[in-house]
Amino acid sequence: MNKTERVYNFSAGPSMLPLEVMERAAEELTNYNGCGMSVMEMSHRSKEFEEIIHTAESNLREIMNIPDNYKVLFIQGGGTLQFSMVPLNLLRKSKKADYIVTGTWAKKAAAEAKKFGEVNIVASSEKDVFTYIPEVKKEDFTPDADYVHITLNNTIYGTRYPYIPDTGDIPLVADLSSCILSDEVDVSKFGLIYAGAQKNIGPAGVVLVIIREDLIGFAPNDTPVYLNYKTHADNDSLYNTPPTFAIYMAGEVFKHLKKLGGIPAMEKINRKKAAMLYDYIDSSSLYRCPVEKKSRSLMNVVFVTGKEELDKKFIKEAKAAGLHNLGGHRSIGGMRASIYNAMPIEGVETLIKFMKKFEAENK
Amino acid sequence: MNKTERVYNFSAGPSMLPLEVMERAAEELTNYNGCGMSVMEMSHRSKEFEEIIHTAESNLREIMNIPDNYKVLFIQGGGTLQFSMVPLNLLRKSKKADYIVTGTWAKKAAAEAKKFGEVNIVASSEKDVFTYIPEVKKEDFTPDADYVHITLNNTIYGTRYPYIPDTGDIPLVADLSSCILSDEVDVSKFGLIYAGAQKNIGPAGVVLVIIREDLIGFAPNDTPVYLNYKTHADNDSLYNTPPTFAIYMAGEVFKHLKKLGGIPAMEKINRKKAAMLYDYIDSSSLYRCPVEKKSRSLMNVVFVTGKEELDKKFIKEAKAAGLHNLGGHRSIGGMRASIYNAMPIEGVETLIKFMKKFEAENK
Repeated sequence: MNKTERVYNFSAGPSMLPLEVMERAAEELTNYNGCGMSVMEMSHRSKEFEEIIHTAESNLREIMNIPDNYKVLFIQGGGTLQFSMVPLNLLRKSKKADYIVTGTWAKKAAAEAKKFGEVNIVASSEKDVFTYIPEVKKEDFTPDADYVHITLNNTIYGTRYPYIPDTGDIPLVADLSSCILSDEVDVSKFGLIYAGAQKNIGPAGVVLVIIREDLIGFAPNDTPVYLNYKTHADNDSLYNTPPTFAIYMAGEVFKHLKKLGGIPAMEKINRKKAAMLYDYIDSSSLYRCPVEKKSRSLMNVVFVTGKEELDKKFIKEAKAAGLHNLGGHRSIGGMRASIYNAMPIEGVETLIKFMKKFEAENK
Repeated sequence: MNKTERVYNFSAGPSMLPLEVMERAAEELTNYNGCGMSVMEMSHRSKEFEEIIHTAESNLREIMNIPDNYKVLFIQGGGTLQFSMVPLNLLRKSKKADYIVTGTWAKKAAAEAKKFGEVNIVASSEKDVFTYIPEVKKEDFTPDADYVHITLNNTIYGTRYPYIPDTGDIPLVADLSSCILSDEVDVSKFGLIYAGAQKNIGPAGVVLVIIREDLIGFAPNDTPVYLNYKTHADNDSLYNTPPTFAIYMAGEVFKHLKKLGGIPAMEKINRKKAAMLYDYIDSSSLYRCPVEKKSRSLMNVVFVTGKEELDKKFIKEAKAAGLHNLGGHRSIGGMRASIYNAMPIEGVETLIKFMKKFEAENK
């Protein structure tokens, strides 16, 4: 197989990246922009790298329309470290936080927060296997909660909030790992947004944090220095050596997205891809999507045949047809097609064609 | 400048990587080993990535001769996060730790540990601007200390321990960020070794931790989950998405080092490079190395002309001659040539040639 023979990779993350971005990265891997060295070899304090990180940030600010009173931080440790950093930094008055539990990651985030304060689960769809997003109203939140935490898109269960909860004056914190940059989000409605890179941003190893400035500076004195948002905010994400190459790749993805027309253009494509797939599944007599219609994710489309053996056969035959990683998360089984920004529409068309063929062969 | 016109990069880190490794990475950037996707796009739970991380670990174990009762972990957050993780996990009985302070990073490590327990500075060379490594004997350590922390090579001040302190039964913890894989180290003398990747291992974004198994499992219950060594040890560094591409690159560097003859062969080259440079500096009437002879680093060679303006001129003219990043750390000025594993002997020869020319022109 030569380097142009790529497969359609439906992995939930790490996942596909724009081919154009990777080809350019390969081209300049040993010599970035004629400077005589790789981005990987560059001091993070060099002019070249400072330009890379500043350009990445300013393009992201433009694409997401991030207000000036928000800091953009590039941090390591993934969403998992954010599960700890959020309560460590934001439990600043009552030490109470509200969590809405809509899946495995939301549950893990809540469990981690319990180490540092009082956690109230204001709603959960767990008893219905997380097949929908609960409706939560302003009066459901703890009046003196320090923040409310949600997982906007749930990678494993294929759900997405059809609304942004109104938390009034309580800062809303959201994990956007699997939907950031896929559709328009009003940043000003959130106190803090975080997102692991490895779905729509770039390679694994960096997590993006967008935080309203008035929420910075409240971590207790014994907080590990790396876990204090102030450390990163005061040093423009250069307190210590950042994951330079991952940030460079993220910056290239932002440029690419801008060129495509930004988030509105991307959202249009994503809605089309998701609609094609859900419409076919809903019309099929073999496949079924367990998720309530209005809570369906644009990024992670879960479906089952209802027979475990048939699901396995599907995944195996799909792989042989060049459609990789269609297995559901190991915790729930079934199938999942993650169709992030970098999945071309042709990938979804090829998948549907395969699904039709498989349906015909397995009536 | 085309992609073969590379400069000699004397950066203290991130720093040069083996060209052969980067060229191969570029070649397979969009399609790793014929699997139809980039390493960056691969699920960390895929067979392909599991093979990458296992091979990286087993090659490292072989190269460093790591005993079986040590775990090898790939973690994010750099040395800075280790400054916190070490005390959080290892202050398990008396809550006392001994630190030897031999530079900026050792000082930062000690300051961080104070958040979690009682820190005793058993020796420091600070009043002599860290120009030597203090001699510390077994009886100097706190008898019931939970561990002793050292920084084996000091990147900023250009020093390196000429001996491994005998701490008796107290676990010795060492930051090897700027000397790992450069010379032979007996891992069994240490309780824990950590090293940021961005000098001798690979791109920034991963820190290597080698920990004796009996030291795992003592972190308090309210430790952030990512900061507990047990989290990473129990999950073979795959508790959450690791920095997959950085780990792949590290693995390729390990393979490359093995091919070159492992650490003994590398150490021979490194000793030669350092000797050439120190010998010239010591014989010169313009340059001076402030570091005591027996404490000199093989990796970071610091030197000064004694005149600030002349130092600046040197750095500027060296850059114009293709010798980049020869400025000392912003905190101390002067010059520093970081000559890590990937710096070819020709780079050091070219530097010496330039230094001679500059000396002749600036008598």
